[in-house]
Amino acid sequence: MPVITMDGPKLSLEQKAELVKAFTKIAAEVTKIPEKSFIVLIEERERDNVGVGGVLLSQMQK
Amino acid sequence: MPVITMDGPKLSLEQKAELVKAFTKIAAEVTKIPEKSFIVLIEERERDNVGVGGVLLSQMQK
Amino acid sequence: MPVITMDGPKLSLEQKAELVKAFTKIAAEVTKIPEKSFIVLIEERERDNVGVGGVLLSQMQK
Amino acid sequence: MPVITMDGPKLSLEQKAELVKAFTKIAAEVTKIPEKSFIVLIEERERDNVGVGGVLLSQMQK
Amino acid sequence: MPVITMDGPKLSLEQKAELVKAFTKIAAEVTKIPEKSFIVLIEERERDNVGVGGVLLSQMQK
Amino acid sequence: MPVITMDGPKLSLEQKAELVKAFTKIAAEVTKIPEKSFIVLIEERERDNVGVGGVLLSQMQK
Repeated sequence: MPVITMDGPKLSLEQKAELVKAFTKIAAEVTKIPEKSFIVLIEERERDNVGVGGVLLSQMQK
Repeated sequence: MPVITMDGPKLSLEQKAELVKAFTKIAAEVTKIPEKSFIVLIEERERDNVGVGGVLLSQMQK
Repeated sequence: MPVITMDGPKLSLEQKAELVKAFTKIAAEVTKIPEKSFIVLIEERERDNVGVGGVLLSQMQK
Repeated sequence: MPVITMDGPKLSLEQKAELVKAFTKIAAEVTKIPEKSFIVLIEERERDNVGVGGVLLSQMQK
Repeated sequence: MPVITMDGPKLSLEQKAELVKAFTKIAAEVTKIPEKSFIVLIEERERDNVGVGGVLLSQMQK
Repeated sequence: MPVITMDGPKLSLEQKAELVKAFTKIAAEVTKIPEKSFIVLIEERERDNVGVGGVLLSQMQK
């Protein structure tokens, strides 16, 4: 029972459904484990709570 | 200092208190590590953010 | 499909089987989700790779 | 900088490369974030360290 | 591309910016990996969702 | 009891001790939580198990 987690931006319901479907299909094909065994967890993280290169995403210069 | 994480549905305060107490008691008994050293983190995940078998929980047919 | 993770010390096969059985039983009782839906992941972490209070477990004074 | 994690079985180098490539491509398409911003972490977990329905994968009846 | 995660209390924007800057600086110095490669994820967890020694933080006696 | 996790490259014992000490000191200063309450978990991940931009670290062109 593999667990796939995506930690990223806010997503629409359509984007979530599409990601879950596609991640599961690919992972099942590559691992030969049936699709029904896969769990996908989506973590939508605020830009105030992610830092890249020492700077918060919400404070980066455009 | 073991860390136990439960990623699951929305829970009441009573359910959280019960889970934390029981997980800690069992893990301390099995590992012989004192109860005071255990941390339990509860992650309540929306049904829109969990996929099983390629389908979001919130979109499954009943 | 809740996911329970325990990040802790090295364990015997018997300890792992006992933890998985007991965590699943309790979590199913508290959440009213069937036992078959629970996944438990065990992470056995070396004492060189855990710090408490700023000190590695492997370097603590007994 | 989204982070995708897959916690699953032992994989060959070819399977890992294929998963990383495909997860990144799909996630970039769905989120409109450039591929170069994605990180994928692969955790290969022993069957002794995964429980489903209260039983270790390594002890399940075939 | 190392990923540093801090799971802790609610923080102000200033605290988050300071943590991200300082964690990244130190980790880059210790590992000799450039600062721009580090990602920091901040998880702010409610006191109802953390247990220590079998008791929820929100229910501890002062 | 905050939990800080660093998922990165192989490290020497000295690097681990230094990271744990420095992460804990900074996090305690920023959050005003005592140092003794912090746990740091170090995950050393193989270059075959990390992808950036769709390519495994171990297969990147120098």
